[in-house]
Amino acid sequence: MKPRIEFYFDFSSPYSYVAANLIEGIADKHRATLAWRPVLLGVAFKASGQRPLVEIPVKGDYSRRDFERTARFHGLAFRYPTTFPISTVNTARAVLWLQAQGSAKTATFIRRAMRAYYVEDRAINDPATIAELASELGIDAAAVSAGIQDGAIKDKLKADVDEAIARGVFGAPFIFVDGEPFWGHDRLPQVERWLATGPF
Amino acid sequence: MKPRIEFYFDFSSPYSYVAANLIEGIADKHRATLAWRPVLLGVAFKASGQRPLVEIPVKGDYSRRDFERTARFHGLAFRYPTTFPISTVNTARAVLWLQAQGSAKTATFIRRAMRAYYVEDRAINDPATIAELASELGIDAAAVSAGIQDGAIKDKLKADVDEAIARGVFGAPFIFVDGEPFWGHDRLPQVERWLATGPF
Repeated sequence: MKPRIEFYFDFSSPYSYVAANLIEGIADKHRATLAWRPVLLGVAFKASGQRPLVEIPVKGDYSRRDFERTARFHGLAFRYPTTFPISTVNTARAVLWLQAQGSAKTATFIRRAMRAYYVEDRAINDPATIAELASELGIDAAAVSAGIQDGAIKDKLKADVDEAIARGVFGAPFIFVDGEPFWGHDRLPQVERWLATGPF
Repeated sequence: MKPRIEFYFDFSSPYSYVAANLIEGIADKHRATLAWRPVLLGVAFKASGQRPLVEIPVKGDYSRRDFERTARFHGLAFRYPTTFPISTVNTARAVLWLQAQGSAKTATFIRRAMRAYYVEDRAINDPATIAELASELGIDAAAVSAGIQDGAIKDKLKADVDEAIARGVFGAPFIFVDGEPFWGHDRLPQVERWLATGPF
């Protein structure tokens, strides 16, 4: 059976942006299935008594430097967004709506929205921006705009976030490989080893 | 001029244990100088409003799993210590005393004490244990026992910890390469790139 990668991410997490640009290559290389699972870090932080990294004294200053250097290390453009962190509830709902449609463009939309935030400094949780990005990718903008207001999609995001927290997701990116938890883009080398050799 | 690595660590940090076993090889490979700088994480945590990782709900449980897996990933033995975290003030003073003597055994002592804690589950902050480990390595046990009570060594540790905090050290391991800060054993690939190519 193919190994299974579940990739939990928040659009408002620079390390999720880095990992979102690497995880598909890793999944392909190891012939693993890949599930994109948007999550809301703010809710997860509350559950584990944490607060946003950039709000922590000293550590926050380092983090901003590290976001930029880590992006450069991986050859990714990065500009610290004017507003950070942000709520990403609508962007996350757009992902769930695309998945509910069985859209083949889900991963493309995710990376496009991240680029809009981390490179183009756009307000990616704004429904108007989401509609623009969707249009650009040939996704029906009116349909996605309706989708992010759909009660079933809203409920699904709530349930997914609750499920993530119950599974121990306290940060992002958070990756499960056949159930084994890995937190952080910097655990991708361990993810790769796990996929290559099985449990170690 | 040779690149300069300053390696801040706390004996009560499993990721410091991992990095302490890798940093010398990295320094040698890139012909860098290496300064071992013991620090007291508890004091640094207070300064940045943090608390020990393992005491954070959810994240703490993950961390214990990650300590063990990360050690295995790097081929290092690891057994979660019975008492963790611990104060490491005496162990840190022993390091400063060795350095004050110009001892060539400083790095060996550091790794030996870490193995005593993370593999043999020994009370490495206990002066008796420090004396035993010193003896084993051919270091004068009576002299090190006196050294860790020496006022000048105590003052030096205090000053070093204050200096580290002033430089933004909020966790361990914390590595400066020619002044550029890197937090965590998982930034060693970036440390290596910095040493190989210069600033990126």
